[in-house]
Amino acid sequence: MPTLRLALCQVNPTVGDLSGNADLVRAWTRKAADAGAQLVAFPEMMLTGYPVEDLVFRRSFVSASKAALERLAADLAADGSGELPVLVGYLDADGPPQVSGDAEPGRGARNAAALLHRGRIVATYFKHHLPNYGVFDEDRYFVPGGTLTVVRVGGVDVALTICEDLWQVGGPFAAARQAGVGLVLNINGSPYELNKDDIRLPLVRRRAAEARAAIAYVNMIGGQDELVFEGDSMIVAADGELLARAPQFVEHLLVHDVDLPAATETSGPDTELADGLRVVRHAVEAVPALPDGPAATGGIIAPVADEAEVWHALVLGLRDYVDKNRFPSVVLGLSGGIDSAVAGALAVDALGPDRVVGVSLPSQHSSEHSREDAADLAKRTGLDYRVEPIQPMVDTFLANMSLSGVAVENLQARVRGVILMALSNQEGHLVLTTGNKSELAVGYSTLYGDSVGGFNPVKDVWKTLIWRLATWRNAEATRRGETPPIPESSIGKAPSAELSPGQLDSDTLPEYDVLDPILIGYVDGDLGREGLVASGHDPAVVDRVLRMVDTAEYKRRQSAPGTKISMKAFGRDRRLPITNRWREDG
Amino acid sequence: MPTLRLALCQVNPTVGDLSGNADLVRAWTRKAADAGAQLVAFPEMMLTGYPVEDLVFRRSFVSASKAALERLAADLAADGSGELPVLVGYLDADGPPQVSGDAEPGRGARNAAALLHRGRIVATYFKHHLPNYGVFDEDRYFVPGGTLTVVRVGGVDVALTICEDLWQVGGPFAAARQAGVGLVLNINGSPYELNKDDIRLPLVRRRAAEARAAIAYVNMIGGQDELVFEGDSMIVAADGELLARAPQFVEHLLVHDVDLPAATETSGPDTELADGLRVVRHAVEAVPALPDGPAATGGIIAPVADEAEVWHALVLGLRDYVDKNRFPSVVLGLSGGIDSAVAGALAVDALGPDRVVGVSLPSQHSSEHSREDAADLAKRTGLDYRVEPIQPMVDTFLANMSLSGVAVENLQARVRGVILMALSNQEGHLVLTTGNKSELAVGYSTLYGDSVGGFNPVKDVWKTLIWRLATWRNAEATRRGETPPIPESSIGKAPSAELSPGQLDSDTLPEYDVLDPILIGYVDGDLGREGLVASGHDPAVVDRVLRMVDTAEYKRRQSAPGTKISMKAFGRDRRLPITNRWREDG
Repeated sequence: MPTLRLALCQVNPTVGDLSGNADLVRAWTRKAADAGAQLVAFPEMMLTGYPVEDLVFRRSFVSASKAALERLAADLAADGSGELPVLVGYLDADGPPQVSGDAEPGRGARNAAALLHRGRIVATYFKHHLPNYGVFDEDRYFVPGGTLTVVRVGGVDVALTICEDLWQVGGPFAAARQAGVGLVLNINGSPYELNKDDIRLPLVRRRAAEARAAIAYVNMIGGQDELVFEGDSMIVAADGELLARAPQFVEHLLVHDVDLPAATETSGPDTELADGLRVVRHAVEAVPALPDGPAATGGIIAPVADEAEVWHALVLGLRDYVDKNRFPSVVLGLSGGIDSAVAGALAVDALGPDRVVGVSLPSQHSSEHSREDAADLAKRTGLDYRVEPIQPMVDTFLANMSLSGVAVENLQARVRGVILMALSNQEGHLVLTTGNKSELAVGYSTLYGDSVGGFNPVKDVWKTLIWRLATWRNAEATRRGETPPIPESSIGKAPSAELSPGQLDSDTLPEYDVLDPILIGYVDGDLGREGLVASGHDPAVVDRVLRMVDTAEYKRRQSAPGTKISMKAFGRDRRLPITNRWREDG
Repeated sequence: MPTLRLALCQVNPTVGDLSGNADLVRAWTRKAADAGAQLVAFPEMMLTGYPVEDLVFRRSFVSASKAALERLAADLAADGSGELPVLVGYLDADGPPQVSGDAEPGRGARNAAALLHRGRIVATYFKHHLPNYGVFDEDRYFVPGGTLTVVRVGGVDVALTICEDLWQVGGPFAAARQAGVGLVLNINGSPYELNKDDIRLPLVRRRAAEARAAIAYVNMIGGQDELVFEGDSMIVAADGELLARAPQFVEHLLVHDVDLPAATETSGPDTELADGLRVVRHAVEAVPALPDGPAATGGIIAPVADEAEVWHALVLGLRDYVDKNRFPSVVLGLSGGIDSAVAGALAVDALGPDRVVGVSLPSQHSSEHSREDAADLAKRTGLDYRVEPIQPMVDTFLANMSLSGVAVENLQARVRGVILMALSNQEGHLVLTTGNKSELAVGYSTLYGDSVGGFNPVKDVWKTLIWRLATWRNAEATRRGETPPIPESSIGKAPSAELSPGQLDSDTLPEYDVLDPILIGYVDGDLGREGLVASGHDPAVVDRVLRMVDTAEYKRRQSAPGTKISMKAFGRDRRLPITNRWREDG
């Protein structure tokens, strides 16, 4: 039984940065060679970054991706890594991209993988199962591949697959079994999602059973706009045993020796396989010999607990958004409340205190403890702290206009937004906004006020989870003997927008421990009114909450819609139409 | 040869308003009956409105759509319209919606049509070709139908089809020919796009030839968020002759007598047809007799010229956005420039002068002619005119912060945004923002400043088209003997943001007659740098413009992105990634 030393390179590519991503491949291939690897794999769309979205429709980008792949093959050989077969995801096309229904059937852009060896492209594979749900739009961009690519490497037949191929029954994994392979390589751009790590390992095990083969799963890490990739690369034996597993949210080289069945002369029929796939076979002439010495073992890192996982995801997402967009620093308003405290602590963890400016923006309604808590956060974390009182500006507006009620409340939040944007223009910071998912869902925020900003690190975090994260982060600091970053009083106080005297969130909203479970059912779970009531929620509260969510859609889409007169208007949002007259509560 | 009197109901449904849409069907069926119609057709997804987007994933919404269809069939019979067969688009499902790759293959939500007769559903059809490009995401929401539904009506075999079925070669139209039908009904929710009317008629003619049958094409009208539907319903004979054509952008009942071939006992084989479709045949027992008297002729309305067409589209899109969302009125800033003047004139055409508030927001940099032109527009149109000087507020910010350069310029635009939002909160108006597509493309606007607003009627209009629209609208007024709404000096003056002394757009941007053709090629045409240079554009200007477009993506996505940790975060934008390091200019 041959042994192959696999190297899975869990790295952090950037969308569009073809040369930077190629440099990553060269550097990590060198590391893999130094570790004695015989077969190296990088993530899905490694060369282009993932997801490339409408870049697919630029012919010049597709050409640049293909040219970068050829150059990479040559550069790897020039680097002295040419003997080592390297699997790399890239963007290919065998026809014009699928921009309308009139495109040529079966031809178009491809989500592709190429095996590079001795300066050449030895084999390519086109992703078969294209995801088109949730954050994925691959039916829009790609056409599915119709072949199973099998490469003989070091005497073992290895099938190449990409991401979603793993998530659907049938297709390449079933075909791999029919083709009699010993190993399936699966390269991924699989976005982080709460608890996804808990379903990934059982899924890989099921596919190993379906393919009757070992599976090597490599995923990227890093933030790309709203997505964050977590890594969690792993190797599972044909019998389902977990052999090696990489940590989450950090770059990592997972090197492990795997015993694999030797390929026989004709490992299987070259006829039509599962899902109409046809097998195409290639061979890598020779791979480096397995080095003498002890076997390489990658080790097994267990996934971390929920709060730690979310915290690391948010830190990585924020850091990469700032750095990949080349912002020098961030600025955010500090109210003394829990949301901005958590956002500030995340920013300091992501960027260091020298790249974070926190601004206290007190009004006449700001309590003394709010100002103290904001200052306390700054002291604990070391961020650059400023105070900009808003009352003079608010008073000038009030003296020149006749405003009352909610118009006056919102005015204060908008003056804060103007100040933060002025600091951004003057000093170059990216403005962070800090509304949590519960607020955003029910529209409890000021349009063009506290919602002003270029990135929101806690946008997808329910309020009750914000509290759990704060508690976890402080406990983690204590455990490490460091100062807990978040003031205890920011965690413990009753939430308030402080836009009118004595105002509390609970004047307007149900308590968050009542609100959040309803929101989670409605938004994340697609439960309807009946389902929520059947789950035990008070029908009157359910009706009130659903009405708030349905009418808040307008606020969530701040980039003003406008009538389209062409196919290429800018910035259309999807999901939940604004002019929705249908409501669960009738 | 039988004659059928067809009635195509070109009406304006609203997404989610099941009972209101059903009422529309009942009212227009009565009109069709009064006109002696024998077969009536309503647009795609008539009952639910189009597009329903993520409402598809709410089981309760799917159930409500199906229940509304049953109720409508009964109500039509109760109305005395039961003898008249009525084709209605609706949302159906024969399995859970396709929310992930794990859904049951071949089952899910359906973009459906039902033929109602004598209180019952006589036949249903599921859309076969699902569009998934441009504004369409139907692969995400629906599974394709696999049958061709043929109904014998008044002795004629009629095939039912939906929208995209018409736009692709093969499929239902090829199958209709094999099934030997005399007429294909095609119901649509086909969004307006500049010049689409010029390709629609030739397309319908090609499909008539493919099906060897007459085609009755009915499209909705109305605005739905960013989309606007134009109508342009028509009837084309099997030989390609245009028999009748409805006007654009207005509700219309198109009634026309069509001579059609009599169905034979077995019109064709019931075996597998083109694209794997299977034919399913139904019959409508009897239809009302053709009334005595002259034949009904729908007439042929020629499409209007480009400027008229765009103007009507923008007026309809704005009116429906305001009315379907139930805003009482709109407010917009009037700078005296061409963009706000055109937006103001559009708003008055859409809503009447009593529902439009125009606010002049002068600063120390506002020229005398700007103030006069704003007042002149108000006088010409009769809108509610106010003046709110911004200098006191700007000065207070400047006295309390150390700002310079672009931070000061943007401050003025942001103070204007705060004032407009305060008026919105105080008085209930929807704020209109008025940046044109050229400005938005290159990022020549102030984030949270002039971009503040809930709807932008000229968002998808290039600057050079704005001028053409203004000239057309004034000429149209003159032709009608009315006062031209737009001041001539707003049309003639050099564009300026007036945020610093003597500032002109041309200080920062190429002249618009140079800029717009490059933008149109890059954005609408997906041309790359090489293609633009080959079209004769100056390479240095091309590089400058492409760099502006690529870096302005950040401004176009004002709803701050944030790291997703779940599949159901709110408001993810698509198209053109922000952190895009690949540029055409290298």
